[in-house]
Parts: sequence; C-alpha cells; structure tokens
Amino acid sequence: MKPILQRVPLLFTYEVHFTTGLFEPSHPLLARTVREGESGQAKKLLFAIDSGVLKYHPDLWDRVKVYAAAHEDVMTLAGEPIILPGGEAAKNDPALIERIHRAVHECGIDRHSYIVAIGGGAVIDAVGYAAATAHRGIRLIRVPTTVLAQNDASIGVKNSINAYGKKNFLGTFATPYAVLNDFSFLETLDDRDWRAGIAEAVKVACIKDASYFAEIERDAPALAQRDMQAMQRQIYRCAELHLEHIATSGDPFELGSSRPLDFGHWAAHKLEQLTDYKLRHGEAVAIGIALDVTYSYLEGRLSEQDMERVLAVLEAVGFKLYAPEMAEHLDKPDDPRCLFRGLQEFREHLGGELTIMLLEQIGKGVEVHEVDLGLYTEAVAILRDRSEISIAA
Amino acid sequence: MKPILQRVPLLFTYEVHFTTGLFEPSHPLLARTVREGESGQAKKLLFAIDSGVLKYHPDLWDRVKVYAAAHEDVMTLAGEPIILPGGEAAKNDPALIERIHRAVHECGIDRHSYIVAIGGGAVIDAVGYAAATAHRGIRLIRVPTTVLAQNDASIGVKNSINAYGKKNFLGTFATPYAVLNDFSFLETLDDRDWRAGIAEAVKVACIKDASYFAEIERDAPALAQRDMQAMQRQIYRCAELHLEHIATSGDPFELGSSRPLDFGHWAAHKLEQLTDYKLRHGEAVAIGIALDVTYSYLEGRLSEQDMERVLAVLEAVGFKLYAPEMAEHLDKPDDPRCLFRGLQEFREHLGGELTIMLLEQIGKGVEVHEVDLGLYTEAVAILRDRSEISIAA
Repeated sequence: MKPILQRVPLLFTYEVHFTTGLFEPSHPLLARTVREGESGQAKKLLFAIDSGVLKYHPDLWDRVKVYAAAHEDVMTLAGEPIILPGGEAAKNDPALIERIHRAVHECGIDRHSYIVAIGGGAVIDAVGYAAATAHRGIRLIRVPTTVLAQNDASIGVKNSINAYGKKNFLGTFATPYAVLNDFSFLETLDDRDWRAGIAEAVKVACIKDASYFAEIERDAPALAQRDMQAMQRQIYRCAELHLEHIATSGDPFELGSSRPLDFGHWAAHKLEQLTDYKLRHGEAVAIGIALDVTYSYLEGRLSEQDMERVLAVLEAVGFKLYAPEMAEHLDKPDDPRCLFRGLQEFREHLGGELTIMLLEQIGKGVEVHEVDLGLYTEAVAILRDRSEISIAA
Repeated sequence: MKPILQRVPLLFTYEVHFTTGLFEPSHPLLARTVREGESGQAKKLLFAIDSGVLKYHPDLWDRVKVYAAAHEDVMTLAGEPIILPGGEAAKNDPALIERIHRAVHECGIDRHSYIVAIGGGAVIDAVGYAAATAHRGIRLIRVPTTVLAQNDASIGVKNSINAYGKKNFLGTFATPYAVLNDFSFLETLDDRDWRAGIAEAVKVACIKDASYFAEIERDAPALAQRDMQAMQRQIYRCAELHLEHIATSGDPFELGSSRPLDFGHWAAHKLEQLTDYKLRHGEAVAIGIALDVTYSYLEGRLSEQDMERVLAVLEAVGFKLYAPEMAEHLDKPDDPRCLFRGLQEFREHLGGELTIMLLEQIGKGVEVHEVDLGLYTEAVAILRDRSEISIAA
C-alpha cells in the first residue's frame, strides 16, 4: 500500500504592542485584544504574576480588578492571581506548573479563555509552558515587564522550565495570542535588570545589523543613565529584529541544528548554571558575547577593531565581561564544572551537529561546527586580564 | 510606537506507511526513516513499548535488538525500552511521563534522536506528550499496533494524557516524525480491540464519504470475521480521510471551536468516564455515533432509512449500541454522573461555542450549536429498547 505523505501547513499570527499604562481603565488595548478573539459573552482571564513585579507595584492586582470591572462586557476575572517567584526560581519548581494547571481545571479555563502572564522572562516562560500544555493550548497574553523580556525572551515562540539540572529541558514551541509590552514597568527595575536586557540588543545587532549596532554605541551612555527614550528605541528595534528572524528564518520551530539568535549563548547558559544563577541571563549573555567575539578575533575571523567596539559597548552600558567561574577546570572539558562542557550541553539541546555562531564583522555572523578549546582558553585569559585592568583602573 | 504583526508560517510533513514485518532485519523501512533524517553518524533510538503488545509478542524487544544490530550504521539503541501499561492506564499516571523525560535526560536523547513508540493509541498519546515536551520536541516515530491507533488515533497531530479526571486535559499539538503502521500486530488483537477501531471508520464515512460507508457495509460481515484484507482496506481509507481532513481543514491545531472529526465523541468521552473506562474508546464511539444519528433522526435532519443503515452496520460488526450508564441521572444535566454533562465538558475542552456534528445524510455532516435534551433523552430510550429487543432475540 502506498505511503501517504502528510503535509500540514500552519500560519500563526500575533501582535506585539508597545505602550505605557496598560492597566489604566481607559486604556483600550487589553480589552480590545480580548474582544477581538471572540464575539458574544465576556471571556475569562486568569492572571499569573511575577512576585518581583508585585514588590514594586503592590497595587497591581487592585488596578487589574478596576480595569476588569471597567471592561466587564468583554472580560471577567477567573479568580485570584497565581503569584510566581521572579527570576530563574520560576523555572526550577515543577509544582508551579501544576498550580497553574490546577487553576485552569478549577476555574474552567478553556481554549477560548485567556491566561495573562505579567513578569520577567522566566515567569513568562514558565506560565507559557503551563498554558501551552493545558487543553493543548490556552490563549496566552504576555505582559513582559523587563527589558530582556520585552526585547527578546517574551516576544517569540518558545516557553520552558528547567529540569534535571538542564536549562529549558522541558518546554514547547507555541506562539502567544498577543504580547503587550508596557514600558511603565521598566521604571521600577533595579539597575541590573535595566542593564541585563541590553546584552540581547548588542547580540542581535552584532549578527544582523551594523547600523543598529552604531545606534547602540551612540546611546550606550544614555542607556547606562536610564534614559527611557533611548531604552524604548532600543527595545523596539531589538524586538523587531528578533521577530523578523523568527518569521523569515525558515525554521521557527528549530527542526534543524542552527540557531543564529543564540550567538554568545552556549557560554551564557553554562555560566548561569556555574554561578548558581547569581548571574542573570543578560549578564551571562554579555560575557558570552565578549567570549565569542574575543575568540572570533583570535581565530582570525574578526578584526581587532570590531572586537574592541563590541567589548567597549558592553562595558559602556555597565556589563562585567568576566566571571571567575569561567576559568575553572578549563583543562577538563567533560567536567560538569567546566565552561566548555556548555558546548556539549548546547549541542545536545538542539541535537544534531554542534553549530555555534561567531562573528566576521559587526553585523555579520558566521556559523561554525568546530571550535579550538586552546584558543577559547586564551580568550578567557584575555577577558580576565581586561577585567583586572578595569578593576585596577 | 507601531505594533508589529508577527506572522509565523510553518509546514510540517510526515509519512504514514502501511506494512507488515516492520522489525524483520531485512525490512528497510525503519532504517530508511532514521537515515533520511540525517547524514553522518548513527542516531540514538529510545523505545517505549505497550505492555499489552509485549504480552502477545514477548520476543519483540529481542527482535528490535537484532534489527538495530543489522542496521548499526544508522541506529543505536539508547538503552532498555520503557514499558508502559496498555490502554487508558498509560494516560492516567503522570509518573510515566516523568520516566520518559528522565530517560531522555539520562540517555542524552536530543532533538535529532528518535523516540519510537510501539503500542495502542493511549500509549502513543502518552509517549507523544513526553516526546513533545522534552527539549521542546524529540523526533517521534509512531508504531501503532491497534486498529484504532492505525486508522485514527496515532496518525494525526495530537497527544495527551488525562488529569483532574478530565480526558486529554494535558497535551500538545505536535506532528510525528513518521508513522509506521505494521498490520502484523493486528493478528494478535483480542476481538474487542479488533472491532473497536471500526467505529472510527464508520464515523468518518458517515460525515465525509457515502461510498466508503457503502464499502464498510459490504465488508461488515468479513470484518466481523477478522478478514485481514478487508481490515487493511478499511484502515487505509480511514487513515486517508483523517489525514486529508487534518491537512485541508484549515485549522489543524484547533484554534477555532469546530472539530468535525469528533462526530459521536462528546457522548463517547463521557461514557468512557462513566463506565470507568470499562468501555474502550471505539466501543464508546460506536454508542456515541448511534446516539447522534438517532438524535439527528428525531430532530428531523436524517431519514429513518439512513439512521437504520448506520445502526445496522455498527451492529453487524458486533458493537453494542447501549450502556446502562447513559440512562442514569438524565434529568440532572449538571450532575457529573449525567451523560449530558459531557456536552459541557466537550465544549470546555475546545472552548468557545458548543459545536456538535450531526448527520443530514450518510456522507454529510452538519454542525449545530444547540441541542434539545428532551430529544436526546428520547434517543437514549430508543437505543435502550433496541438493545433489549436484540438481547431478547
């Protein structure tokens, strides 16, 4: 009997908005988003909120309730919000996923209801995983509250939690129903979270867009001084480049081995783990970028001038480009405490051949499948020396 | 700032094969399937097997080992197989999902490795859910071993387990890497499992294809007597119709409220639960179809002759069209023990408006959004009377 070749075409669409004051009763965006989904009766909204956001916005839930009351023709609150710990902790506790699943069950949330996730990238990742697996997918409205979440982590097609000591071990590919970026939340970020997300902007500029890189260079002092206009421009362009890549790369659900947007990330993921997540993701990405541009230079791919520009812009926005954990056990690449073990873990997560993005020039990445650990060890030493000089200065 | 409309186009493809003797060392299919995925080194295969299959094929694992050894250039076994209980039990124990995730972790299974699931629809559903959520999706090769799994449950784009007493509460939409239907497994099915899958063939013929319905009518006596040729024809055509619907319906991941292939299923899902899964899925579907065609007749949509043809073909292949549980508490539609509560649960799973498929004529379904519980109560009584007459005769 002849085999049947099954072809399943799909087109997912969602809007990514940029605004302020999302929960002011007169702001039409959330109500319009919910209304567009469906005609007829009011839809149920289940909220999941980052405890870190509530700390700085203790009145947030009251404001949500006032908002919902003002738009009761289109929305009703399904119950009390689910509060998740902020940061990586949200991704390390499977009981949180169960809590969300149980709330979906108990509140009678269905595929035409909404889960609204408010928080940083980790919280939105975890809530997204729970939403994607209940009833095979509840509509998820993401309200990212950090720079990193707004310009990268919470605008794309992935969700996940950590398991067995492996970052993002459990997760799915799933598009959100909508992403509503509210810049107001950025005002209360601490300096580390304000800064951290800029690493992803430097990353995507490095591999995709030299003129955007020049903009970041120009804006770096303003960004370091928390200039909101500069930050908004940066988030918008960074989000745009990420979204464009996902839409046009031809492999949004990563069936192949290549993941260009993960420039600098093999080391970053490992460093987060090696530092017990004391380094935040963006901080680790800054180091990962610094390491991979230094290596690109040592391999003769990248000019010294371009390397220096990348390292300088990261330093100008305030990143440290070295962590002592990256220099330990470098002679034992299979040791779980060795940075280089991150290469193997990175390969395993994607599967297939090792594929690492390096830099040829600012704005132009290149994929390689083999690396020289001797040169990487040298790159680590260069970053260590540079950091000591900077401390001494 | 202007919102960004993100459009993510995707095309998933997979082959559905029909064969016998899949694990004979000289059979090229599995080796070719694994080889096509990748050039280069041998790929890891992790097997998950239905204990019900092993009962009738105790040498299956030995045969797999011999097969793998004969094709060691393209495949290596990742470890011992994971054995899952057959039937609905596979979907009721979340610890089984964890066992598979742990094996993926411990065996270093990556996105370019394969999980091979051998078994009935429930086992393949559960393994599929675990595979779809580890590393955001391991390649899944499905080897369905029952009629129901081969003609319907294990050829499409869904996976799931049960939770909180709700069928398929947790799951994802995910396409398999390939489906390899091996008819040899059908020979050892007990009569109930041989028969059960035929209900899905009657279902899809009813709503889609009158000439296929006539074929099933013609073949019904042969199917009842376990004629393998007739069964193979039936499975192929049924699979073809299901696959065609998924590919061309425009909503393969069910973002809307309509699910035409679930003709007869609102009652079937509830009956499985009401009978504590003593009714197998196909047996419950046969009753669900009988109920919905009788109701379609009572509502004046369907001719008496067409109703009679559907009921007769189900009886001819050996189905009972009544279960006492369906007549209990019919006056209390919100009671969890009432069949009609299944309408609400069905609506909730899909979300949005209640959408039920009924029949206008054989080969032509029609969707409705409201039902008359009085007429449904009458339909239950008609099926009860019919079953008593049939027992008396």
